[in-house]
Amino acid sequence: MDAASRIDGPALTARIRAYRSAHEVEIVRELAGLLSRPNVASDTANIEKSAEAVASLLEKRGIRPELLRVPGAPPVVYGELATPGARRTLVLYAHYDGQPVVPAEWKGDPWSPVLRDAPLESGGREVPLQSLRAPIPPEWRLYGRSASDDKAPVVGLLTALDALRSAGIAPGVNLKFFFEGEEEAGSPHLAEILDRYGAKLKADLWILFDGPVHQSRRMQVYFGARGVTDLAITLYGPNRRLHSGHYGNWAPNPTAQLASLLASMRDPEGRITIPRFSDPIRPLSETERRALAAAPDVDAALREELGIGRPEGAGESLLEAIQRPALNVHGISGGETGARSTNSIPTEATVAIDFRLVPDLTPESVRAAVENHIRARGFTVVREVPDAAARKANARLARVVWGTGYPASRTPMDLPASRALLRVAGEASGGPVIALPMLGGSIPMYVFREKLGTLPVGVPIANHDNNQHASNENLRLQNLWDGIEIYAGILARMDW
Amino acid sequence: MDAASRIDGPALTARIRAYRSAHEVEIVRELAGLLSRPNVASDTANIEKSAEAVASLLEKRGIRPELLRVPGAPPVVYGELATPGARRTLVLYAHYDGQPVVPAEWKGDPWSPVLRDAPLESGGREVPLQSLRAPIPPEWRLYGRSASDDKAPVVGLLTALDALRSAGIAPGVNLKFFFEGEEEAGSPHLAEILDRYGAKLKADLWILFDGPVHQSRRMQVYFGARGVTDLAITLYGPNRRLHSGHYGNWAPNPTAQLASLLASMRDPEGRITIPRFSDPIRPLSETERRALAAAPDVDAALREELGIGRPEGAGESLLEAIQRPALNVHGISGGETGARSTNSIPTEATVAIDFRLVPDLTPESVRAAVENHIRARGFTVVREVPDAAARKANARLARVVWGTGYPASRTPMDLPASRALLRVAGEASGGPVIALPMLGGSIPMYVFREKLGTLPVGVPIANHDNNQHASNENLRLQNLWDGIEIYAGILARMDW
Repeated sequence: MDAASRIDGPALTARIRAYRSAHEVEIVRELAGLLSRPNVASDTANIEKSAEAVASLLEKRGIRPELLRVPGAPPVVYGELATPGARRTLVLYAHYDGQPVVPAEWKGDPWSPVLRDAPLESGGREVPLQSLRAPIPPEWRLYGRSASDDKAPVVGLLTALDALRSAGIAPGVNLKFFFEGEEEAGSPHLAEILDRYGAKLKADLWILFDGPVHQSRRMQVYFGARGVTDLAITLYGPNRRLHSGHYGNWAPNPTAQLASLLASMRDPEGRITIPRFSDPIRPLSETERRALAAAPDVDAALREELGIGRPEGAGESLLEAIQRPALNVHGISGGETGARSTNSIPTEATVAIDFRLVPDLTPESVRAAVENHIRARGFTVVREVPDAAARKANARLARVVWGTGYPASRTPMDLPASRALLRVAGEASGGPVIALPMLGGSIPMYVFREKLGTLPVGVPIANHDNNQHASNENLRLQNLWDGIEIYAGILARMDW
Repeated sequence: MDAASRIDGPALTARIRAYRSAHEVEIVRELAGLLSRPNVASDTANIEKSAEAVASLLEKRGIRPELLRVPGAPPVVYGELATPGARRTLVLYAHYDGQPVVPAEWKGDPWSPVLRDAPLESGGREVPLQSLRAPIPPEWRLYGRSASDDKAPVVGLLTALDALRSAGIAPGVNLKFFFEGEEEAGSPHLAEILDRYGAKLKADLWILFDGPVHQSRRMQVYFGARGVTDLAITLYGPNRRLHSGHYGNWAPNPTAQLASLLASMRDPEGRITIPRFSDPIRPLSETERRALAAAPDVDAALREELGIGRPEGAGESLLEAIQRPALNVHGISGGETGARSTNSIPTEATVAIDFRLVPDLTPESVRAAVENHIRARGFTVVREVPDAAARKANARLARVVWGTGYPASRTPMDLPASRALLRVAGEASGGPVIALPMLGGSIPMYVFREKLGTLPVGVPIANHDNNQHASNENLRLQNLWDGIEIYAGILARMDW
């Protein structure tokens, strides 16, 4: 085989593309075969069969599959491919489980994949997979649960390996395939699996093949993701509704008190104003700032699409805004609005909040700052619903109930591994890719550093309009073709 | 007849009490007869019959009843009783209509009055009215719609007149009886009636016989009532729910924005912080402040009863707090809390508010200050639900919808008429009465000054625990007995 270093990026891409062109029908059929297996993590019998199907795909490539197990969890399908002489080892992550489905909302069965000649919303018609012939128009879409999230990367990675082998090109790194089986359930056993199999999983970098490309359809690499933690705060008024004329200004109005408390925590531009909350924040590096500035501007188009007159953030772009920590209010309730509103003081009011975390905030640091702030405003913080005695005995009571959470992750962009990935991804996609310091949404990327000491990055390939997590999930074929080329570049030319 | 001036307060009260003791059964039966007439203002046939019944009570006393009418309204039952040589004229106001009922919530029929030997909640048993014999224990209660609100004053006033006549004591003033028929519907035609019958209604003072006595059961006189106006504010976010991780800090969060707006309007002690809002406020006089300080302190007992750890108002008493204007939040809503909460940014949020007004705020001054404030915070104020184009075209949109409203009224306590009333009421009730500058709740007392140039005051007699506006409304008989004595004092000894 040729050493990867002996072939340059454009030449590699040309050969991978030629392979794909010659094998489009079988690639789509292999993915469709995998999509025909129900894959909700809690559906134990079926998720085990899905794991076997993924294992057989490895086996087909001569990679011995292993099922990494901990009690109560679907197995991780794992396989290694050593490259003699390689200095570096990558763990290639994807997941074979998918979101639960609401069958009534789907056109057709979620696990009977269907190829359509355009998006459903544009009147796409079904094309029988049996009679499929190459070349397949690249705007066609394959519909089915997990088509894009996240079985396309499984098949795409293995296809990239097929293409390299067909071209006689050896990988440039040692490869470890790690296909998780419960990501959509929140990866509840991932930390335990990493703990148990830490020795086997020794590597220089994790690459997560999950998520969508940029709305502009340009390829992107994400170097991290915000963490998250959530809470509900309930404040209390009188123990029965009181006439607002006879008691207003004296009986505490819990809705007004809650508004004051919330407004003391977050300003109208979304900046968090809780004392000491921001102390642990690590600022973006100059490299990260430059990368954000270089990303395509989709804000105007998004404002148009979403009916937003003026974004929060005092002039920041969306990408800049989501690099900050966020206090997001999911909902607020207390008393009645609309036709059922009466001139009375409500008895309690509740707000549901998530915090999105950036390095080096932790759920613990957030919790401490938030509760110190609430206490500093005169509230006694309790966990349970207070009884009448507690309501009388405390000047102000706040019931604060936290959910679980985890910290953010942000792998530096200027590490040699990061620079190598950006270079390879750019070569494979014909120009610089978008480099995102962090996704705004949360992924527990922190766990790889925490459990293994290895840094993670993410390379998504799915179209952004893939109906992720919803009905009629789909994959635009051009995104899979692009993915195969970027995967091949990573396998063959990543080194640092 | 004796001239009123020739009998002193204690002697008068003794004679009125003797009359009442001798006539308890017929007084209760007369009130029960009136209570047996359905009296919801919108029930035209029945409210007309109620008016006739009230008219016949006047006629029975030799007072020629008139029905003051404007189109579409139940009539005011009106009668005059001139006192030769009297310098002053009082209009004695009560209303014969009552709140609508929810029959299922009543024990028995709301218009089949029942005497009970204790409050229902304490296991009170029914006492047949047919077999009633004096003396009737004064803690017994008469149950029925309008027993206390507001038919007891109608019968009480006429009984006071009976008692005076029986004792050979002439009134000290000219009397005009004014019994309204749609007070519980919000007095929608009162201003029109005052306009049309202004000449007939010429007087020196209106006395409103409506409302409950103090929670301590001490008699009180109220010299005014706060005004009111209400509104709903709706703020807007993206036109569909967005993932809070991917869009939080950029897509406007309408719940958080609403909290900020609200907190900018009202501080946690209930003080209104809207610029220029308070400019028109006329401070309490020294007399009014002293009167508040002299009122019995029921705050500790109320805190205990209502489960309030610490009232708003930074140390003010309830009575002091309700002399200030109030911004009362009835309810707030936006997104979801509790089990249905999702990590998304809501599309809109709404708050329902009432403002309680003090002199010389007006609904117009409040509206101007509130809307100027909202605009100063960058919002465009609209009345209708904005369409997609409006949402995109405006940086920040606030839909502000106002209800109706009216200003406060506060008759000075140190006017000669006010001082005379306090003196007479104190004599009749055996000690100083509580003097309230304003009730916290709203009554359109302003209309008498505005339409007739005559000042109003209020003298309530009902027990505070009368289930006003609710099911099982009732009147504690001792309150009626006390009322007859205070009414007689006013009729016989008011002069200035």
